[in-house]
Amino acid sequence: MTPASSERREQFADAVLRIIARAGCGAVSVRTVAAEAGWSAGALQKTFPTKEALLRAAVELLIARAEAQEDEEITATTVPDYLIAHLELSLPLDASRRTDTILWNAITTEAAHTPWMAEILRAQDDAVFDGLQDSLAALGNDDPAGTARALLALSDGLATQMLYAPERSAEIRAALRTAVPLLLA
Amino acid sequence: MTPASSERREQFADAVLRIIARAGCGAVSVRTVAAEAGWSAGALQKTFPTKEALLRAAVELLIARAEAQEDEEITATTVPDYLIAHLELSLPLDASRRTDTILWNAITTEAAHTPWMAEILRAQDDAVFDGLQDSLAALGNDDPAGTARALLALSDGLATQMLYAPERSAEIRAALRTAVPLLLA
Repeated sequence: MTPASSERREQFADAVLRIIARAGCGAVSVRTVAAEAGWSAGALQKTFPTKEALLRAAVELLIARAEAQEDEEITATTVPDYLIAHLELSLPLDASRRTDTILWNAITTEAAHTPWMAEILRAQDDAVFDGLQDSLAALGNDDPAGTARALLALSDGLATQMLYAPERSAEIRAALRTAVPLLLA
Repeated sequence: MTPASSERREQFADAVLRIIARAGCGAVSVRTVAAEAGWSAGALQKTFPTKEALLRAAVELLIARAEAQEDEEITATTVPDYLIAHLELSLPLDASRRTDTILWNAITTEAAHTPWMAEILRAQDDAVFDGLQDSLAALGNDDPAGTARALLALSDGLATQMLYAPERSAEIRAALRTAVPLLLA
């Protein structure tokens, strides 16, 4: 891949993510994506011959961005505080994380009838789950698998609550702070 | 409304839900819904002059069905067991509940860019939250609001995990059984 074509691929993938965040997966078409990226429909179809290839590039871009964010430094003195801070990073507490939550929800929903998306999601979930399970096991947790699953479900569920009730962000954050130490007990 | 027109409204609303479950909100159009319901596009447009009116009827039908399901009887001797049984009813453990989970995820995702849907979801969430919070308060729970929020987030998050990893249903159910008593402690 030449640098120019790699850059164009990312422009189209980014255009797809902007359209999904604004109007949902149903609004993604050759016409809308080409217009959003500022290229012709022909240029888009030359770069991504199928809609699946285009959507794959968008999902991969979203994952790459999520991985880059995870490098944010967390300072905490206790295990529950560390976990709370870590899980809070996935809550839609600012505009950029709100967009990320909308995008992940959209892809999760689309995956229900799109097997290749479900496969990517499962691999992604497994990686996060395995990492958390290993950390909990190293800390001597009695049920690292169950606890990891519950902690991830809790933070995903709270992120969705916050999306539709942003005015309750403080209560939702408080629920995370209360629940994490209980789940680690 | 005549009985005939009420029946036709429900046929169209049900057709919308079947299409969303199978192919997502993006697949809902006058053409697809009329075909799915076995009526003409004209009959659909006479019954529902706008797409919003049609989608509203579909969301209302989904809520009415969810409310009817909640009447299922739960027999449990302890509070955690009762709550586990109650929350398990929302897990996609059979085909019908799997469809419901897909539909709720689709509507939650759509609500991110559809204010009237977000409003219905908030009202729906509030009703469930208030009921659970009141029950927890009556049981003497120290933090009924935080606990209610955490329990609902947990079961929503586990339902989504189960949708994409149905082969892990047993582990996901086990995580619910472990986490609920800890959150009630």
